[in-house]
Amino acid sequence: MPRTRAYRDGKIVGHGFPLDDVSDFLEHDGCFVWVDFESPTESEMRQVADEIGLHELAVEDALHPGQRPKLDRYEDFLFTVLYDVGFDEASGDLTTDEVKAFITHRSLITVHEPSFDIGIVEKTWDDNRDLASHGVSYLVWGLLDTVVDRHYDTAEILGDSIDGLEETLFDVRQQTMDVQRRSFALRKSLVEFRRVVTPMREVLNTLLRRDDSNLAPEMGPYFQDVYDHVLRVTEQTDALRDLVSTILDTNLSIQSNRMNLVMKKVTSWAAIIAVPTAITGYFGQNVPYPGFSQTWGFWLSTVSIVAISVLLYTQFKKRDWL
Amino acid sequence: MPRTRAYRDGKIVGHGFPLDDVSDFLEHDGCFVWVDFESPTESEMRQVADEIGLHELAVEDALHPGQRPKLDRYEDFLFTVLYDVGFDEASGDLTTDEVKAFITHRSLITVHEPSFDIGIVEKTWDDNRDLASHGVSYLVWGLLDTVVDRHYDTAEILGDSIDGLEETLFDVRQQTMDVQRRSFALRKSLVEFRRVVTPMREVLNTLLRRDDSNLAPEMGPYFQDVYDHVLRVTEQTDALRDLVSTILDTNLSIQSNRMNLVMKKVTSWAAIIAVPTAITGYFGQNVPYPGFSQTWGFWLSTVSIVAISVLLYTQFKKRDWL
Amino acid sequence: MPRTRAYRDGKIVGHGFPLDDVSDFLEHDGCFVWVDFESPTESEMRQVADEIGLHELAVEDALHPGQRPKLDRYEDFLFTVLYDVGFDEASGDLTTDEVKAFITHRSLITVHEPSFDIGIVEKTWDDNRDLASHGVSYLVWGLLDTVVDRHYDTAEILGDSIDGLEETLFDVRQQTMDVQRRSFALRKSLVEFRRVVTPMREVLNTLLRRDDSNLAPEMGPYFQDVYDHVLRVTEQTDALRDLVSTILDTNLSIQSNRMNLVMKKVTSWAAIIAVPTAITGYFGQNVPYPGFSQTWGFWLSTVSIVAISVLLYTQFKKRDWL
Amino acid sequence: MPRTRAYRDGKIVGHGFPLDDVSDFLEHDGCFVWVDFESPTESEMRQVADEIGLHELAVEDALHPGQRPKLDRYEDFLFTVLYDVGFDEASGDLTTDEVKAFITHRSLITVHEPSFDIGIVEKTWDDNRDLASHGVSYLVWGLLDTVVDRHYDTAEILGDSIDGLEETLFDVRQQTMDVQRRSFALRKSLVEFRRVVTPMREVLNTLLRRDDSNLAPEMGPYFQDVYDHVLRVTEQTDALRDLVSTILDTNLSIQSNRMNLVMKKVTSWAAIIAVPTAITGYFGQNVPYPGFSQTWGFWLSTVSIVAISVLLYTQFKKRDWL
Amino acid sequence: MPRTRAYRDGKIVGHGFPLDDVSDFLEHDGCFVWVDFESPTESEMRQVADEIGLHELAVEDALHPGQRPKLDRYEDFLFTVLYDVGFDEASGDLTTDEVKAFITHRSLITVHEPSFDIGIVEKTWDDNRDLASHGVSYLVWGLLDTVVDRHYDTAEILGDSIDGLEETLFDVRQQTMDVQRRSFALRKSLVEFRRVVTPMREVLNTLLRRDDSNLAPEMGPYFQDVYDHVLRVTEQTDALRDLVSTILDTNLSIQSNRMNLVMKKVTSWAAIIAVPTAITGYFGQNVPYPGFSQTWGFWLSTVSIVAISVLLYTQFKKRDWL
Repeated sequence: MPRTRAYRDGKIVGHGFPLDDVSDFLEHDGCFVWVDFESPTESEMRQVADEIGLHELAVEDALHPGQRPKLDRYEDFLFTVLYDVGFDEASGDLTTDEVKAFITHRSLITVHEPSFDIGIVEKTWDDNRDLASHGVSYLVWGLLDTVVDRHYDTAEILGDSIDGLEETLFDVRQQTMDVQRRSFALRKSLVEFRRVVTPMREVLNTLLRRDDSNLAPEMGPYFQDVYDHVLRVTEQTDALRDLVSTILDTNLSIQSNRMNLVMKKVTSWAAIIAVPTAITGYFGQNVPYPGFSQTWGFWLSTVSIVAISVLLYTQFKKRDWL
Repeated sequence: MPRTRAYRDGKIVGHGFPLDDVSDFLEHDGCFVWVDFESPTESEMRQVADEIGLHELAVEDALHPGQRPKLDRYEDFLFTVLYDVGFDEASGDLTTDEVKAFITHRSLITVHEPSFDIGIVEKTWDDNRDLASHGVSYLVWGLLDTVVDRHYDTAEILGDSIDGLEETLFDVRQQTMDVQRRSFALRKSLVEFRRVVTPMREVLNTLLRRDDSNLAPEMGPYFQDVYDHVLRVTEQTDALRDLVSTILDTNLSIQSNRMNLVMKKVTSWAAIIAVPTAITGYFGQNVPYPGFSQTWGFWLSTVSIVAISVLLYTQFKKRDWL
Repeated sequence: MPRTRAYRDGKIVGHGFPLDDVSDFLEHDGCFVWVDFESPTESEMRQVADEIGLHELAVEDALHPGQRPKLDRYEDFLFTVLYDVGFDEASGDLTTDEVKAFITHRSLITVHEPSFDIGIVEKTWDDNRDLASHGVSYLVWGLLDTVVDRHYDTAEILGDSIDGLEETLFDVRQQTMDVQRRSFALRKSLVEFRRVVTPMREVLNTLLRRDDSNLAPEMGPYFQDVYDHVLRVTEQTDALRDLVSTILDTNLSIQSNRMNLVMKKVTSWAAIIAVPTAITGYFGQNVPYPGFSQTWGFWLSTVSIVAISVLLYTQFKKRDWL
Repeated sequence: MPRTRAYRDGKIVGHGFPLDDVSDFLEHDGCFVWVDFESPTESEMRQVADEIGLHELAVEDALHPGQRPKLDRYEDFLFTVLYDVGFDEASGDLTTDEVKAFITHRSLITVHEPSFDIGIVEKTWDDNRDLASHGVSYLVWGLLDTVVDRHYDTAEILGDSIDGLEETLFDVRQQTMDVQRRSFALRKSLVEFRRVVTPMREVLNTLLRRDDSNLAPEMGPYFQDVYDHVLRVTEQTDALRDLVSTILDTNLSIQSNRMNLVMKKVTSWAAIIAVPTAITGYFGQNVPYPGFSQTWGFWLSTVSIVAISVLLYTQFKKRDWL
Repeated sequence: MPRTRAYRDGKIVGHGFPLDDVSDFLEHDGCFVWVDFESPTESEMRQVADEIGLHELAVEDALHPGQRPKLDRYEDFLFTVLYDVGFDEASGDLTTDEVKAFITHRSLITVHEPSFDIGIVEKTWDDNRDLASHGVSYLVWGLLDTVVDRHYDTAEILGDSIDGLEETLFDVRQQTMDVQRRSFALRKSLVEFRRVVTPMREVLNTLLRRDDSNLAPEMGPYFQDVYDHVLRVTEQTDALRDLVSTILDTNLSIQSNRMNLVMKKVTSWAAIIAVPTAITGYFGQNVPYPGFSQTWGFWLSTVSIVAISVLLYTQFKKRDWL
């Protein structure tokens, strides 16, 4: 059973009806419909395409994954490709789902994979029923608003992840390897995220600027609002990229600094231990050095070892090497 | 008691009056009012929106935090989101407060959080009373000028912070960890700051270029002046970013250099200490080497230790390794 | 035998015919031809140029390798230079083949090296025979679509290579030298790839925007589709560059981190081994230290060696240095 | 005594006259004047402003330091802020002096600090007396030409400083700390320099493109010439930034390389010295090893020490580790 | 004897004639001349300037070195500054020679230093005699084509140099210092090269787009061809910059990696040598340890030394540390 809806005069006049009834609804003036396809077969798509008059190329794009986010103009309809995104904080992976839509004068036809929950779009429509009198523009706005809100949420979660990363950055107990892994995963997700959200500016721009657009003028501010969100997501993404770069740079600098500290410590301890070794070596010689086989020789050796070691230790401590 | 003001003929004809009196004032020709809301409730906002005829979406934006700085055009009014910023040098944190405003033909309605002191805007208005005859433009200019001046001040404080960072950069006694922490905090604040100030160019540009703008032509140079400040803040921000990057890079280079110096020292001392150890080892052998159990053997050992150590020390000193 | 084709009314009316027959075909209204030259000699090229009226400069460009991807406008024809690309994952090398074409009102003349298989262009034409009624535009589209699809495929393979690189990045057993070599080769290939694909935007843009273009309007969406692919390849390339940079940076950070770990280990073991050496040195002195030549001296020495070594080992283990 | 000048018919008809005489000169047709203020008081400025009719905001800008380089349009005059720059090679510091000017139809009023020598502007005017017949444009050109020439000279000196830095870069005897300090100072100066010279493009562009400009058309090529210099300074600045970055990067790489060389040397010498220590340790054991207390044991020990040390030394030499 | 040429009807009607004859030639309709000055004196230049009517400023630019590449428009003529470049692979230095030209309706006047061989421009003209009927455009094209071809060749040589650098990059036997020196020299040359070639786009653009241009329309494709070469050189330069950066980054990474390898080796050998030292130290104690002065003590010592050393060696070998 396909998800379908028919609206007239701002009210739902039918839903869940079979595809065959679409044309019945469209016969009524002022009536507009929504049809949703979940992973449609090629024949299903072609049948609808013939009915409504969709261009061959748009149908091909709808059937094959891997399109870039875009809004294509055809003579009688618009075709748009959007991406729903989600971010799994545990694994650091970004998930993307393609959502495609044909926008005609009186219908919106959405195509998506089962992994995308079209229900969240329906919820947006239902939460804004007062706009339903503005025709297909209302449906298009609901779809875009839902998708862009998801972008917005994902940007927030990515921001939180980066905040978490920052906290581990100056934490000595943390494994730096962890910082590297997580910052790498985040940067990769940001690269991916950017590819999905950047073209949205163009999509909204095209919709807002088109003279031959079928958008209801009353919906203008609503689309402008979505555009604002797109801008904010884009700016946020750039800021996050900047932050991740800063974290990587700072991490490198911190590691270099720790290395310096370790080197100083190593040197200091090596010096402190090397001195007794040199002294006992001296007193271990089989030559009649002063104090050879004498008790005062033992005291000489022991006192010099302790004295020089303590001296070195205090000197290094004073210079903050230890 | 809400903060309110009514102006006519360049003079304040009322202030601190209740919201209900707003319409009375607006009945008079040439009269314009300012109303301020501190964290308004939804019902308060909607009541005003109905009275003045504000669009649903702008009201929503006014009620919810997290908007980007912008200027939205609606049919009968403008809606702007601005950010007041402050920088706490001690903690290195940037604080931001959203200030929103509805600009109609004869009124300015500001909405803000309690953390923002609207009094500084009032002070700007009072300091420039001679402009009050230019209508709402005067109020809008006062608001923008105050906010952009705060941006300007913050940029100066950030600049001072970076100057402070520079001074510690080449100071050997300073903990380099400190440089890292502070430069990281500064760079993060700059990223945040940039997100707040960059869109201000667009806000001012939109105001200055609008043909259907209600701005009094006499106020043109004043808005241009604010725009100049916005440009200066933007340029300053870019220069500061550049400087912080330079500091980070230089810090890395300095650390690498110190590492080299430490390594040279370590090597030199290790060599100086290794030689006596090798010699005493030789004279500690249980085989009849020349001088075994002989007084001249002791002298041979002692003299070679001292001689080689002194030689190495002077050599290293000469090459500047010690 | 040159590869040739003649079309009329959307059908192939001749193929594999000698060059001399071209003019016969062009005498028929609505007939258009394709002629392919594999590494033509200068005289061959000039003969065709004279027949169809090609400009001297375009002929020169066609004969000499090393042109940039472009679309040149001449009075009566267009001249385009495209690059077929391939990526050999084993060697990490990018291969490029120049494909040049003259586009006149009723003919497409392609020029290429033997290393480029023109058969894949013929396949695209044959797979889309229903478009053949749109004249030369159909041939041009087929050529561009084939070349851009190859770009697309190469971008995918480059992406896979980078994914492979990522997996080795955090793998301790991998030789980091390998990561460096491969990331260097990839970055170099990306630089090369970018030079080939970036100008394609301009080529398509020029074709799509030209008012005096001879493109059949029905082919518009098809060229737009190719343009979309070009955009996607360009965006992909930028994302890949970003990823390779991230990999290089992360690799540097990982190496620095491993260095730190190694240094800690070295230090720890050096300390653990230095202590027994110092103690046995002490007990090796030829002075009557407590326990000299006594059995309890042996126990004293042995127990302190074991005790201190174990103590150090556990301490280092606790601090995660070992 | 203020610096003043009056011109008519391309000749100086008065100079050094008091401010009160300005209006007398302006009464004559074709006469134009220059007035210079060195750190004017507020009342002085306001007096002049009233006389000539300058806008309040421009006067404020003229009185307060810290403006960005700009050219503001007012109804009856232009207001420009320029920066004279100088570079002190010894300290590496960039000095900047604000020079402001009001440009009216028949007068140029300059405002500057005592640290700026306005005499160099007068010299430019005197060196180009043949242009004096072109009115105020002549004065404006002289001012801009002088300031931009100073930018040009400073860019040259900065370039020389960077050349000097380069020479120390590969010089082993130089303290690398010095390279860091100087490259940091240079990069900082370049950031500052850029802020001063970049907006000059806009200043010249505005002057050259203004339709309502009062510039004498004959002066066009002269302003274009200044614009060329501005472009050259901007390009030079970008190239210098690039070079300083390259120097910093190369310095890091050189340090890393030196570290490697030092490490190899350390390792080699450590190995060469460790071997005799191990051998003499062996022969120092109190167990009847072969050669214990035998003369041939001494030879065995001595020969192996020398042999192994020489072998290691030559091996390391061969591998270029020493 | 100055280099001069006079053309009429596509043929050379005079060459090597003295300057005084120029006006004779220009009296004939359809005749155009070329005059070349090698390091002209000021008086020579001014004489020609007066004859042909060149602007003072252009003459100044022609006399003084250090102009940026540009095309200036004057009322009656164009003035252009170009740079011939060469790259000395041995020293890594880029050489530049300024070539300046005045372009009037019927003459081309070139000015250059003796270091630039104007003969190569004459060669281009002679090789393309069939274009000589297109007037001064022919001469201008020949000059630009020659200079841009030299840019093109230099870009190729720079590319070869970078290829050579790449090969040494992963070659262990090469001194990394060499890579640094050469990559620094190359990057510096690229910065310089870029300053020379980037403004050429603007020069060609101005020539191609000028409505009041005197270019013969038949020469359009030829100038477009030069423009294509300029674009290619610019793209090549950007790609080369990218490659040099990659080489520098990779070099840093390789060095860091080698450091890691050296550290591992050092650690391993240090451990292998430290163990016998510790054991012989133990057996060198003057306390009655088990085996003291016993033959089995010697065996115990020797066997443990050999066994532990071999064990460590194989362990390290297995972990790839040696």
